[in-house]
Amino acid sequence: MSLITLTTDFGSVYPAAMKGVILGIDPRATIVDISHTVPHADIRAGAFALYSVVPYFPVGTVHVAVVDPGVGTARNSIVISAGGHLFVGPDNGLMVPAASRMGKMEIHKITNLGLLGDVSATFHGRDVFARIGAYLSEGMPLEEVGEATEDHVHLDFGTAEAGNDSISGQVIYIDDFGNIITNIQASDVFKKFRFEERIRIFGNSMPLLETYGSAEIGELLVLIGSHGFLEIAVNRGSAAKKLKIGCEDEIKIEKS
Amino acid sequence: MSLITLTTDFGSVYPAAMKGVILGIDPRATIVDISHTVPHADIRAGAFALYSVVPYFPVGTVHVAVVDPGVGTARNSIVISAGGHLFVGPDNGLMVPAASRMGKMEIHKITNLGLLGDVSATFHGRDVFARIGAYLSEGMPLEEVGEATEDHVHLDFGTAEAGNDSISGQVIYIDDFGNIITNIQASDVFKKFRFEERIRIFGNSMPLLETYGSAEIGELLVLIGSHGFLEIAVNRGSAAKKLKIGCEDEIKIEKS
Amino acid sequence: MSLITLTTDFGSVYPAAMKGVILGIDPRATIVDISHTVPHADIRAGAFALYSVVPYFPVGTVHVAVVDPGVGTARNSIVISAGGHLFVGPDNGLMVPAASRMGKMEIHKITNLGLLGDVSATFHGRDVFARIGAYLSEGMPLEEVGEATEDHVHLDFGTAEAGNDSISGQVIYIDDFGNIITNIQASDVFKKFRFEERIRIFGNSMPLLETYGSAEIGELLVLIGSHGFLEIAVNRGSAAKKLKIGCEDEIKIEKS
Repeated sequence: MSLITLTTDFGSVYPAAMKGVILGIDPRATIVDISHTVPHADIRAGAFALYSVVPYFPVGTVHVAVVDPGVGTARNSIVISAGGHLFVGPDNGLMVPAASRMGKMEIHKITNLGLLGDVSATFHGRDVFARIGAYLSEGMPLEEVGEATEDHVHLDFGTAEAGNDSISGQVIYIDDFGNIITNIQASDVFKKFRFEERIRIFGNSMPLLETYGSAEIGELLVLIGSHGFLEIAVNRGSAAKKLKIGCEDEIKIEKS
Repeated sequence: MSLITLTTDFGSVYPAAMKGVILGIDPRATIVDISHTVPHADIRAGAFALYSVVPYFPVGTVHVAVVDPGVGTARNSIVISAGGHLFVGPDNGLMVPAASRMGKMEIHKITNLGLLGDVSATFHGRDVFARIGAYLSEGMPLEEVGEATEDHVHLDFGTAEAGNDSISGQVIYIDDFGNIITNIQASDVFKKFRFEERIRIFGNSMPLLETYGSAEIGELLVLIGSHGFLEIAVNRGSAAKKLKIGCEDEIKIEKS
Repeated sequence: MSLITLTTDFGSVYPAAMKGVILGIDPRATIVDISHTVPHADIRAGAFALYSVVPYFPVGTVHVAVVDPGVGTARNSIVISAGGHLFVGPDNGLMVPAASRMGKMEIHKITNLGLLGDVSATFHGRDVFARIGAYLSEGMPLEEVGEATEDHVHLDFGTAEAGNDSISGQVIYIDDFGNIITNIQASDVFKKFRFEERIRIFGNSMPLLETYGSAEIGELLVLIGSHGFLEIAVNRGSAAKKLKIGCEDEIKIEKS
């Protein structure tokens, strides 16, 4: 099996060039799009997209991820191996949460220029990462991409802080339903709150429920999303629109 | 062959988790996205998307469909077999028009929990329907998902009503061109109207034509869409914007 | 190998019908979406999308392209063979820039109706082009689609005109970052300008740089895009929004 995922902020057209390159090298590859609509240059949102789905892919999957506002500047290109998955992309933190979730990280810099053809200054997704991803999915040993390194840009989703009757955290991601995903973990929520209890967020009181359909239609609720983080939602509506909240906003949940 | 389609209102990222699950079970599966941009929680629009393309897939295809505002509540999970196609999703009517179009329906409840792992309260697309779909496409007999049932939630697109010189119906779907698709069938249209004749809709007079390019650029027209229903369009424009019409609006076509 | 690309302005749902048809004929086909969000009926933008990625696909790829406002009218359906690639779609110029880029064009009209089933007046993507594409990717000789022809609708991106201290051209495409892609070629740019030099466009002065990240965040820059054309961009922003520029607008670059 040869399975490659793609996570980018490219929108349309450009991802197809990456797929052409991959299938030219490894015609048997199955390619899965994780997202090509990561908000432009939002490395943290791209990191969350990859993080949230990576455990559902089989061991041996190669994940090519390119949210890369620094393309063509001095930043490194790397491959991370963790838990039997490989991650190929820029050294800007994008792949770190997903890779750390899967296991201990072994990192190699991409320095073997013999593997590459002409490299443009603006599209390493096509000229570097797709090629390296395809060679790896075809079975090339990791060591051939270049030397191992401990050095890399770190990224995590931060740590929520617990007060007496509250938890303070941050918004990581707004999904396409308008659900607001925070960095507050389920385990921290249930130390202070229980299902059916009402919670206050930005002056709004809303219940902590198990699923969307348990709230009235159009009503705010809090739940633990399928990714394990606290999520603010509206049953059949958009919480992000209703609360006018965006990525990286600070958030505080309190007893209501 | 192992062919699985996906129809959801999930937008980006979440469908990739479903694909990871499917390819973990059945690495040879070919996965085709029908749509992930069904309007959120609009079961009827999702039903139309699936209905409109299902006859173009080969016998043996497994269709996983998840527009599921009731996820995690008491609604059932079902598999429908009809005309050699299998449909996997929530029992909310979503798959009924497509399945009935293909043949007589045989319905089974998904009750065999031994086929599933941990099931979240909010993402049965990933935890239930993708898994069951992959097992079925791999060749698992339908009976293994659970008991047969006659009981299910029905959904159809309603019946247009013919008056003396008019037909009254409903909008089912707005496509990405802004074409307005109604539930008025071609056979009913041609009982009262003929090509080149002018028709009045919402106070606008427009011709019944064979194709978009037969109207002037920017002009309204009526035609029979590729799905067999009456469709209101603008040549190189959006009829939905021009007429400010949305899904489920009532519609009446009259001699002009 | 059996590799088919799709380029359309269809949005969601309709491309799935094309994929069902293709996989019914050639179940081993790998299908790659180039874009389904070409601006509606914008043949030139669709032509650029295909042109920009086609060299990255392996020899033997079949490209099905359908931006087809004239569907069901008198326009021809054609297959172009060039440089080992096949292009299937309407004879409206859509495929000409991509095909000419790959080699000398050999053109056949699709006249063998025995290859087709029922053909609707509004959806030749499904009823003609997907079928023919699948037969060709399966190995059917090109001659079987119909007679060779020299006649076809031409399309190119025009020629930029060099003045004393300026070059005048046209916008071809706005990508999903909001980057403005012009028809001014790199070779013409470097006859008059050099890296780091400032250039004036629409009254704005901006530097000619190698990549996005070399400009300040939020600042305009000019660069040679990965497709070889002059491109106006904003580092981590949208140049199209900032300059309020759209497809086919005229553009003039001058010494600043």
